[in-house]
Amino acid sequence: MNKPLVGILMGSDSDLKVMREAAKVLEEFGVAFEITVCSAHRTPDRAHKYAVDAVKRGLKVIIAGAGGAAHLAGVLAAFTTLPVIGVPIKSNLDGIDSLLSTMQMPPGIPVATVGVDGAKNAALLAVQILATSDNKLMKKFADYKKTMAKAVNAKADKLKKVGYKKYQ
Amino acid sequence: MNKPLVGILMGSDSDLKVMREAAKVLEEFGVAFEITVCSAHRTPDRAHKYAVDAVKRGLKVIIAGAGGAAHLAGVLAAFTTLPVIGVPIKSNLDGIDSLLSTMQMPPGIPVATVGVDGAKNAALLAVQILATSDNKLMKKFADYKKTMAKAVNAKADKLKKVGYKKYQ
Amino acid sequence: MNKPLVGILMGSDSDLKVMREAAKVLEEFGVAFEITVCSAHRTPDRAHKYAVDAVKRGLKVIIAGAGGAAHLAGVLAAFTTLPVIGVPIKSNLDGIDSLLSTMQMPPGIPVATVGVDGAKNAALLAVQILATSDNKLMKKFADYKKTMAKAVNAKADKLKKVGYKKYQ
Amino acid sequence: MNKPLVGILMGSDSDLKVMREAAKVLEEFGVAFEITVCSAHRTPDRAHKYAVDAVKRGLKVIIAGAGGAAHLAGVLAAFTTLPVIGVPIKSNLDGIDSLLSTMQMPPGIPVATVGVDGAKNAALLAVQILATSDNKLMKKFADYKKTMAKAVNAKADKLKKVGYKKYQ
Amino acid sequence: MNKPLVGILMGSDSDLKVMREAAKVLEEFGVAFEITVCSAHRTPDRAHKYAVDAVKRGLKVIIAGAGGAAHLAGVLAAFTTLPVIGVPIKSNLDGIDSLLSTMQMPPGIPVATVGVDGAKNAALLAVQILATSDNKLMKKFADYKKTMAKAVNAKADKLKKVGYKKYQ
Amino acid sequence: MNKPLVGILMGSDSDLKVMREAAKVLEEFGVAFEITVCSAHRTPDRAHKYAVDAVKRGLKVIIAGAGGAAHLAGVLAAFTTLPVIGVPIKSNLDGIDSLLSTMQMPPGIPVATVGVDGAKNAALLAVQILATSDNKLMKKFADYKKTMAKAVNAKADKLKKVGYKKYQ
Amino acid sequence: MNKPLVGILMGSDSDLKVMREAAKVLEEFGVAFEITVCSAHRTPDRAHKYAVDAVKRGLKVIIAGAGGAAHLAGVLAAFTTLPVIGVPIKSNLDGIDSLLSTMQMPPGIPVATVGVDGAKNAALLAVQILATSDNKLMKKFADYKKTMAKAVNAKADKLKKVGYKKYQ
Amino acid sequence: MNKPLVGILMGSDSDLKVMREAAKVLEEFGVAFEITVCSAHRTPDRAHKYAVDAVKRGLKVIIAGAGGAAHLAGVLAAFTTLPVIGVPIKSNLDGIDSLLSTMQMPPGIPVATVGVDGAKNAALLAVQILATSDNKLMKKFADYKKTMAKAVNAKADKLKKVGYKKYQ
Repeated sequence: MNKPLVGILMGSDSDLKVMREAAKVLEEFGVAFEITVCSAHRTPDRAHKYAVDAVKRGLKVIIAGAGGAAHLAGVLAAFTTLPVIGVPIKSNLDGIDSLLSTMQMPPGIPVATVGVDGAKNAALLAVQILATSDNKLMKKFADYKKTMAKAVNAKADKLKKVGYKKYQ
Repeated sequence: MNKPLVGILMGSDSDLKVMREAAKVLEEFGVAFEITVCSAHRTPDRAHKYAVDAVKRGLKVIIAGAGGAAHLAGVLAAFTTLPVIGVPIKSNLDGIDSLLSTMQMPPGIPVATVGVDGAKNAALLAVQILATSDNKLMKKFADYKKTMAKAVNAKADKLKKVGYKKYQ
Repeated sequence: MNKPLVGILMGSDSDLKVMREAAKVLEEFGVAFEITVCSAHRTPDRAHKYAVDAVKRGLKVIIAGAGGAAHLAGVLAAFTTLPVIGVPIKSNLDGIDSLLSTMQMPPGIPVATVGVDGAKNAALLAVQILATSDNKLMKKFADYKKTMAKAVNAKADKLKKVGYKKYQ
Repeated sequence: MNKPLVGILMGSDSDLKVMREAAKVLEEFGVAFEITVCSAHRTPDRAHKYAVDAVKRGLKVIIAGAGGAAHLAGVLAAFTTLPVIGVPIKSNLDGIDSLLSTMQMPPGIPVATVGVDGAKNAALLAVQILATSDNKLMKKFADYKKTMAKAVNAKADKLKKVGYKKYQ
Repeated sequence: MNKPLVGILMGSDSDLKVMREAAKVLEEFGVAFEITVCSAHRTPDRAHKYAVDAVKRGLKVIIAGAGGAAHLAGVLAAFTTLPVIGVPIKSNLDGIDSLLSTMQMPPGIPVATVGVDGAKNAALLAVQILATSDNKLMKKFADYKKTMAKAVNAKADKLKKVGYKKYQ
Repeated sequence: MNKPLVGILMGSDSDLKVMREAAKVLEEFGVAFEITVCSAHRTPDRAHKYAVDAVKRGLKVIIAGAGGAAHLAGVLAAFTTLPVIGVPIKSNLDGIDSLLSTMQMPPGIPVATVGVDGAKNAALLAVQILATSDNKLMKKFADYKKTMAKAVNAKADKLKKVGYKKYQ
Repeated sequence: MNKPLVGILMGSDSDLKVMREAAKVLEEFGVAFEITVCSAHRTPDRAHKYAVDAVKRGLKVIIAGAGGAAHLAGVLAAFTTLPVIGVPIKSNLDGIDSLLSTMQMPPGIPVATVGVDGAKNAALLAVQILATSDNKLMKKFADYKKTMAKAVNAKADKLKKVGYKKYQ
Repeated sequence: MNKPLVGILMGSDSDLKVMREAAKVLEEFGVAFEITVCSAHRTPDRAHKYAVDAVKRGLKVIIAGAGGAAHLAGVLAAFTTLPVIGVPIKSNLDGIDSLLSTMQMPPGIPVATVGVDGAKNAALLAVQILATSDNKLMKKFADYKKTMAKAVNAKADKLKKVGYKKYQ
């Protein structure tokens, strides 16, 4: 694989069931990435080092998924100039804590937050960001959107055909 | 001014008191932008056209601020391949409606959401996105962060000097 | 079946398990309807066309069910003059996001919102709207309410008879 | 004035500052209406009588605004076959109580709920409902939407002309 | 059984699994009661009649359980001078809608609200109310509290004895 | 004044601006009461003693108002057999903390909770409780409700007369 | 076992499945503790006595877990000068009631609140408090943190090795 | 002043209006402290260094106040073995974001959270922690509680004397 452009981090390996979707999307788009477990609270030194080194290692975008008092995305954003995408992971308070502690960053340090458990959208956003300077990738994303529309339309056709009672 | 790279939209001109901050930041960074009022609900055709034309007009990032059932960012994201940054504007329910209707997008159509009334951070995120392919801008953003740190440290010094009773 | 008076739309085919109830009610009342999958975000062009054509195609009421950042009802309302009924579908945040993003519409573009997963009530509301100019339908709805009251009273009678310990 | 088609009720005269907007809109559209104070809890007999008599008095739509444990719309809906539009009025809990107690009606008895303090949209929804059998009114509503779009576009033009710094 | 002093009502027979607890407590205390299904929205006339007749039928307290837009307790309170105890039943929004629509009554019409699904406490509160003029019942309630304390202390003793690892 | 039947307690003298309403209502109904400041947390011994002595001192009902982690009503209820009415006082979290910590009592120890800042309703509920064994008081309460209805109807008459534009 | 330094209390034995974690941690650190069931509402006298005697019995820290209207930690804090750590236990409202009624204490009576169901963290916090005057314990806690970091890093190594598709 | 035992940090100098109360309390108890502005996001290196050095500099307790996505307390806790007390500062979402992002820490890294804007209680908790190994300080805290009780009782006496109508 090429030198990774996107780094996917998660606060705990229990988040992998969600964050796996981000990896799949990047693979599908042929975007080189790396994926690791790194906790803002339990391995703060590694989180610090990861963020500080990210630019020189050639990363372009960081995706960080965490739950509860989800500080990972914010902590990484504090130490890097790269865009950081935050994925609030569902917690024992339904994800509202993850969501607010990812999104409500102070002026100066943005985190690009996607929906709760939105790892797939985080990866698509990373693709869109990279595509701002990569026309081929932009083209791929446009195709992806068309395919998605077709899939919805195919369901509409099926519903029309089989009727709402039999549709499964 | 050069051809705009960033488009700032807001659902109502009453949002300008918040969204103005985005314009100021882009100006400070020398990033060409345009700014307009465009409602997903009251001017849906213009919103549609804006999003469809955005790529060919040379825009790289769209920033959309809206309140209440804040559909603007999502509607634009539906029609464009560019990254769309959503700013939830405080509403008559404290902004929780704006926040959730901006952020909880379905799989396939991400919106990069910043905090409630976070127009400044939206612009900084746009800068970070553009900086992924513009080293000079990346350098400027790094400097911006240093200046910000210095400002905080200056306040710490002042607090140490004058004491917590007299600090104002 | 006659030319449809009510259009039932849903953002995803996974919403059908909820929206099916709307179809059943309309069938029960003999109101002609159509039902389809149409996403505000993934098939925005079709949503746009559906709303723009609705009046000339003879529709009188539109029912739209969606979850999360539920923009479907609002987007349709933006493009049509027909009354649009929104059904907030339960999401990964318990439906509070669906509810607020359906209901908190800006002045000028109302959406008639029913309760979370309230597809049945959406259809009954459509019946009530059509009944404002259709006395037979109004009569049917009055009968429906009487039947409903009788069903509750039958339960009360049964509870009285078998006692609270054995009632099932 | 003609025989009223729309009845506007509010639980307390303190709600008039919000509900007044509904009256203004109906007046603007030339729709005959009546407006009164009627509490589900303090004048339950009058509320009961109002709802029971509504159809025979020729009303077509009822708009009910209330705050807190906002039962007015639901209580009226229980006693009439007419469509009832509920306006949740902001309360000492920010309106979230009004909203939920208006919207979360049980299967069988819908209330068409608009946004918090959304009296204007309640009236527009009433217009849309009446317009399902009144082409002239439908035409008026279509014109209203065009005027609204023009007003937004005029603001966009002004913003372009004076710039975001001077716009007021 | 004697003439009932307490009336237990619930909006739907699906609430019986919760409201049954109230009946059990009253039985345990030897307080005569009646229990029925009565919906504020689906059988409004019966709810109205029940409340209006309650005093002359010799009832002293009414307990009303309902979920969602839970209007039952409030509607009964509107039509009677008896104390009404409201039990918010868990709904598809976790009970927060039931809770707020039961509790946030306007000045003049109180509902004595207990916790979500708190049917047992509703019955105990009814006992306490009746006990304000019935010393024997007051004595029974005091004994009930002692028994309850003993049960907790027995658990504490058991935990001490078997240890936290084996306690089940 | 006679021996008090109702005790009004509040956690802080800053709550008096709300709790005063309870005193006024009891005075209006001629119900003897006492009113004091007593904190569950800052004067726990006095709270304890108050609750333990309440029955023998002849009290029949206790009203307790507190905000934030509002434990006062619950603590009193733990130590007495009298019905305890809780008034959640608005706090720096809009009263949602006061409300939940007053209402969500464990099985066995009910608190009769009224709405946020609902001191007036707390007193009316106390009147209703006392009236279960005092027909004269019951009569007074029935009159109170009639007067209340008349006041609403008078406002309706005024609104009809002066019109919604001039009503103030 | 030595004289206990930490007392673990819980409002109900059903809380033991959560509070057990606190006991395990203290055992792991070799900190003497005791654990009991004690309800603020059902055994208020024992709670009162426990808190009043705690200092003279040699306790240094109290941990209290409770759910719903969770008054236990606050009630103990009212009667002792020891630091009290509150563990909000998940309730039928998702723990938001437990959380707010534990944390929102009035000025003068703090409760050190940890996350919902955070019994493990409560014990670690007790260790940290004791370690402020016990260097050996401080050392143990530092080692604990290192072990924790190693465990996260081991997971990161495993993820790197087996890849995100096979990691379990 | 002696070597500080307590460090008070806040994320922004705008938090000083709240955090000042912590300083006042420590001063009143004669506990040496230091106070500074230090942002987890804008000055992450200084926050890191502060936490890492805290033990060797002789600090015993850290108090950290921050609002919004309030990561300061958690970030400090990640890097130190000292107990960290978190003060959630009211934000543009009423403090619910500050509260959850301070309190919902992952297993292993506790933050002792006090109420929203609870700087005074944070300082009192620090006193209680220090007092676990300082009997004089424990005695002072016991006296503080007595004084507090007296102040409440004095208000109760005044209320009794002047009556609820004239009390101010």
